[in-house]
Amino acid sequence: MTDPGKLALVPFVSVDHMMQIVHRIGIETMLKGLADAIEDDFRRWESFDKTPRIASHSAEGVIELMPTSDGENYGFKYVNGHPKNWKGGRQTVTAFGVLAEVATGYPLMLSEMTILTALRTAATSAMAARHLAPDGARTMAIIGNGAQSEFQALAFKAICGIDAIRLYDIDREATEKAVRNLTGTGLAITTHPTPEDAMEGAQVVTTATADKRNQQILTDNMVGSGLHINAVGGDCPGKTELAEAILHRSDIFVEYPPQTRIEGEIQQLAPDHPVTELWEVITGRTPGRTSAAQITLFDSVGFAIEDFSALRYVHSLLPETGLYVELDMLADPDDPRDLFGMLLRAAP
Amino acid sequence: MTDPGKLALVPFVSVDHMMQIVHRIGIETMLKGLADAIEDDFRRWESFDKTPRIASHSAEGVIELMPTSDGENYGFKYVNGHPKNWKGGRQTVTAFGVLAEVATGYPLMLSEMTILTALRTAATSAMAARHLAPDGARTMAIIGNGAQSEFQALAFKAICGIDAIRLYDIDREATEKAVRNLTGTGLAITTHPTPEDAMEGAQVVTTATADKRNQQILTDNMVGSGLHINAVGGDCPGKTELAEAILHRSDIFVEYPPQTRIEGEIQQLAPDHPVTELWEVITGRTPGRTSAAQITLFDSVGFAIEDFSALRYVHSLLPETGLYVELDMLADPDDPRDLFGMLLRAAP
Repeated sequence: MTDPGKLALVPFVSVDHMMQIVHRIGIETMLKGLADAIEDDFRRWESFDKTPRIASHSAEGVIELMPTSDGENYGFKYVNGHPKNWKGGRQTVTAFGVLAEVATGYPLMLSEMTILTALRTAATSAMAARHLAPDGARTMAIIGNGAQSEFQALAFKAICGIDAIRLYDIDREATEKAVRNLTGTGLAITTHPTPEDAMEGAQVVTTATADKRNQQILTDNMVGSGLHINAVGGDCPGKTELAEAILHRSDIFVEYPPQTRIEGEIQQLAPDHPVTELWEVITGRTPGRTSAAQITLFDSVGFAIEDFSALRYVHSLLPETGLYVELDMLADPDDPRDLFGMLLRAAP
Repeated sequence: MTDPGKLALVPFVSVDHMMQIVHRIGIETMLKGLADAIEDDFRRWESFDKTPRIASHSAEGVIELMPTSDGENYGFKYVNGHPKNWKGGRQTVTAFGVLAEVATGYPLMLSEMTILTALRTAATSAMAARHLAPDGARTMAIIGNGAQSEFQALAFKAICGIDAIRLYDIDREATEKAVRNLTGTGLAITTHPTPEDAMEGAQVVTTATADKRNQQILTDNMVGSGLHINAVGGDCPGKTELAEAILHRSDIFVEYPPQTRIEGEIQQLAPDHPVTELWEVITGRTPGRTSAAQITLFDSVGFAIEDFSALRYVHSLLPETGLYVELDMLADPDDPRDLFGMLLRAAP
């Protein structure tokens, strides 16, 4: 075993370390920290290199790379989406990512991102709702109680002051799991036999269902004035959750239009249908919610900058937590032009 | 510490493990194995998803992602190019990559690729020369004796039967380093005061210089009939090594035209200048060298399929060598829909 130099080592945050980081920081504090990091980066939106994700499609699913850079750091996420993976006991979505230094091209951190993506998705939703939900909103319905639902509930509690969650899922077991997981968090949790019932009295509704097809989880008559809709599950071509009529009654806010028009709820609309970019609301350039009666829709699909923000945030926690190991991932010869000599000297 | 399930673990080949693999297999055997793997994949060129690399440019350099897939496996490489990195004791080029399974999207292996890229670049050059160099070629000049030079020398020895190497570099120390590293390999090594002198009697010339600008490492009158030119160093916009006149006298072979026209020697030529794709020679669709007098030029820039082949080859060596560790990189909850529950149960 040769002794790699310091420059060769890249901090790696495993799944276990990520879970320890969450518990060390506290999940609600971490969701708040992520929301602030994401909001900070949306505020300087124009300084980022932006590109739609690079997707490799197959019959079974998709593998995507999502890179971005702010000129100082570079980040990318590898993420797959394979709806039938659960049959083999695998996650339908898993992810990992890398944060790097633009000046040298050297990676600063490799991290699991399955858990981190779940956290950043919820943090982004709640951050958007902070700008879009009606004043004094305290009750949220969650339609679809799968892997993302508890993260959404806690993010809206920590960031938006939601204290009551009304759950519905077509699969009763999913709802029961969410109830178990949210017990003891301080949220008032109720379960409901229909989506209509779940939405009664809610100021915010989150849709986060898993079926990859064009659905109408919300029909037009379910959506009353003043509602904020946090549409999380419509996030790839051919997968939507809202009846088209709802979109025509809503003011629609999106992350990055070139991507959302392909992947989001608005894939149902004409390509020039007006939408507002969330960063414009955050910078004050465009108003968010302007009246109590307005229906606001955050058509969330997940964008590379959110992953970048999440990687930066986790990277900032490494010194205080020490929750990582160092990987010998980069060749580090004494003389950078003598890679072959390093190899020769490693002979057993 | 929770105990990650088997599905959560991804084999990781560190720099040290990669060097141990090279010594375990033998460097020449490994170069041959890589050349065969790359040739096999070029032979089924049409079954690959191909896309030019995705580059993020900055004042200091570039960070690139190079993905490809054959429908069964997916691979990508992260690679940086930062010409001034050596000033801070860093490599100008470092890389790592991932091989994944298309059916599930799950990574099969994470690997260092700084050393592996050096090996695959040399293996690709020698594989191309196997189809293009004149019969009975035994002598190769190498102009530019930096990090890639020794790999080229050994690949041409192992794969093409080259037994004499004539070295020249503007920096005498680089040449002395290459001599030291190649001593004892069975190659006859000589050093030369000028590139012209180095090329005397050589049937093959490899150019592998580092300066990122348009140079004339080879001028027109240095190139005699029958020569095979292996142009390795002209590999990004604004970086070329050959006088344009040479290109007009040569039959030019490239990896993937959309990328080579931007990055290779042929960036000097009209965008419709005729070139032959190497895979067409390998499949027998187009002839390679057709006469002893012909000047052949392999305008190498490095393509994602070569990295894919290299990752597949290294992955195939893991069971027999055991030279890797397993990383807890993918979340693996007992119930895939219960990511939050897994996080809760990891509380200390």
